[in-house]
Amino acid sequence: MEENILVTGGAGFIGTHTVLQLLKQGFKVSIIDNLDNSVEEAIHRLRKLVGPQLSQNVEFHLGDIRNEKDLEKLFSHTKFGAVIHFAGLKAVGESVAHPMRYFDNNLVGSITLYKVMAKYNFVELQLVFSSSATVYGQPDKVPCVENFELMAMNPYGRTKLFLEEIARDLQKADSEWRIILLRYFNPVGAHESGMLGEDPKGIPNNLMPYITQVAVGRLPELNVYGHDYPTHDGSAIRDYIHVMDLADGHVVALEKLLQRKDIGCVAYNLGTGHGTSVLEMVAAFEKASGKKIPIKLCPRRPGDATAVYASTEKAGKELGWKAKYGVDEMCRDQWKWASQNPWGYQPKPK
Amino acid sequence: MEENILVTGGAGFIGTHTVLQLLKQGFKVSIIDNLDNSVEEAIHRLRKLVGPQLSQNVEFHLGDIRNEKDLEKLFSHTKFGAVIHFAGLKAVGESVAHPMRYFDNNLVGSITLYKVMAKYNFVELQLVFSSSATVYGQPDKVPCVENFELMAMNPYGRTKLFLEEIARDLQKADSEWRIILLRYFNPVGAHESGMLGEDPKGIPNNLMPYITQVAVGRLPELNVYGHDYPTHDGSAIRDYIHVMDLADGHVVALEKLLQRKDIGCVAYNLGTGHGTSVLEMVAAFEKASGKKIPIKLCPRRPGDATAVYASTEKAGKELGWKAKYGVDEMCRDQWKWASQNPWGYQPKPK
Repeated sequence: MEENILVTGGAGFIGTHTVLQLLKQGFKVSIIDNLDNSVEEAIHRLRKLVGPQLSQNVEFHLGDIRNEKDLEKLFSHTKFGAVIHFAGLKAVGESVAHPMRYFDNNLVGSITLYKVMAKYNFVELQLVFSSSATVYGQPDKVPCVENFELMAMNPYGRTKLFLEEIARDLQKADSEWRIILLRYFNPVGAHESGMLGEDPKGIPNNLMPYITQVAVGRLPELNVYGHDYPTHDGSAIRDYIHVMDLADGHVVALEKLLQRKDIGCVAYNLGTGHGTSVLEMVAAFEKASGKKIPIKLCPRRPGDATAVYASTEKAGKELGWKAKYGVDEMCRDQWKWASQNPWGYQPKPK
Repeated sequence: MEENILVTGGAGFIGTHTVLQLLKQGFKVSIIDNLDNSVEEAIHRLRKLVGPQLSQNVEFHLGDIRNEKDLEKLFSHTKFGAVIHFAGLKAVGESVAHPMRYFDNNLVGSITLYKVMAKYNFVELQLVFSSSATVYGQPDKVPCVENFELMAMNPYGRTKLFLEEIARDLQKADSEWRIILLRYFNPVGAHESGMLGEDPKGIPNNLMPYITQVAVGRLPELNVYGHDYPTHDGSAIRDYIHVMDLADGHVVALEKLLQRKDIGCVAYNLGTGHGTSVLEMVAAFEKASGKKIPIKLCPRRPGDATAVYASTEKAGKELGWKAKYGVDEMCRDQWKWASQNPWGYQPKPK
């Protein structure tokens, strides 16, 4: 297989891990990334990991999907077989404080990408889109099934919800579009080499990068939001998924898209199906790292649900995909990445 | 009062009538319009109507709100006191067939406009936005009250719903934003002079322009969609509102916005509060025009509600606004416009 795949946001956390697996499967990959929330060092690491041979199959283009010209440069000279669209912002708190950034990056960016894709007749309108479990909002029951009613709790969630609806509208109007919406639960972990991982700018928003920065001494303690949820230990329950499982989920989704011409627009959960509480995750990380993580119990955050985890039935049945890794491997690989790269892709600040 | 107001889409149907009333109230107006669904002749007519004196207070800029540079040219040299944002596409059927146009024009256009507004520190973040009764979807009960749950039935409706939610998010994050969302019911009629009116390109989507084109002989008959609704005559019921009432609604909304610094983001219905059936509207138009309108009874269209009309209480109480014109005046002025301009702003095709 020598299909050319365009990966937007391919220098980011999930992007780099997915590109790695795509290259191993024999795909050629063009990455477009504006490096707004990522660094080119991640691409250098990726090249080292796959070796000089496969490295020839990945191109990196510094560019912004909100800029039609940046996209046209790519689409005008490469016949892409599909687009995997990661590019976007993803921090809930930031989206509440700066919603314009989210509407601009996520909505304008995606619509501009789709418009340019549709402009070139020879481009296959095949798309894998990074949706999120955030579209389940505060679900009445768990596990979350793909046909649940969707809702948004904040501007970030609204961009994901709107983009799912936009994708469905596009596909309904033009059956040339074939779209898989992947609803990620909580991606954590890192490549087993410890060379690739999550490197958020500023104070992390999510549990695992936060724990990691406490473990390496960049932050003093972990705030645990909510200790009076109706769960066995009072902390909220989420479905953490190893980023390598997620990356494999993209590869099987892409293969499905390339085979099934009548797929329409379809959503799949990518989660393990198992709920883990915040305190359980902290304990698992302490065990994997041998580090004590000081915690501070804080009030619940508005909009946070008690428990969110995936039904994995549809992805299992239709994609033949299932997460392989458990919490112990997630914490092991997270710690390997963090201990080898305490400042992420950057050198230690002087 | 010499406040400068930017009016996007000011060459369109509701735009021209609103600019007329703004000029009469002493505002200075800059119009930006890409003339995608309007013509510059409308601006010439507007200038004639207000006379040479007031005509000096309106500028027309050919430009596209999706283009930051077009907007920056305006914002960098004029300190606007507010923006009235009409620019957008509005045909339900077209939005189903060509959703990308709607996401691009309506979503990308509006987000780009808001982004440029926020970029200039000296710009007042005061906005009157053209929403629509479409956000009530197929309401369970009538009249529609502003605090009803909102929904979308098609891509056009989704753009209006998303843009309402985007406006609320922006205002919540930054109280400098002051936003009035005006939910139009069914705008019809024309300026009493017969010099301004609605001039849709292609086959009209809405009842009144369609009736009008049948009356002047451009179309053979009117399709009436649905004759088995649970209404007194079987046809669907809507709340038609005279475009001059709507224009006045914008003037009072703007004045409210300029006075009340703590207005937040608030929605008002602009309707008469009276439901009129399609067949009643046809009869009223026949009476006003003296023309027979041949009709063809057709099946209901999916997504069309039985009856949609406005609660006018909130606009009455908080804006002191109430529609003055009834169905007879709407039809009288619609006919005056149509009979004087059977081909709209264009000369009769040869």
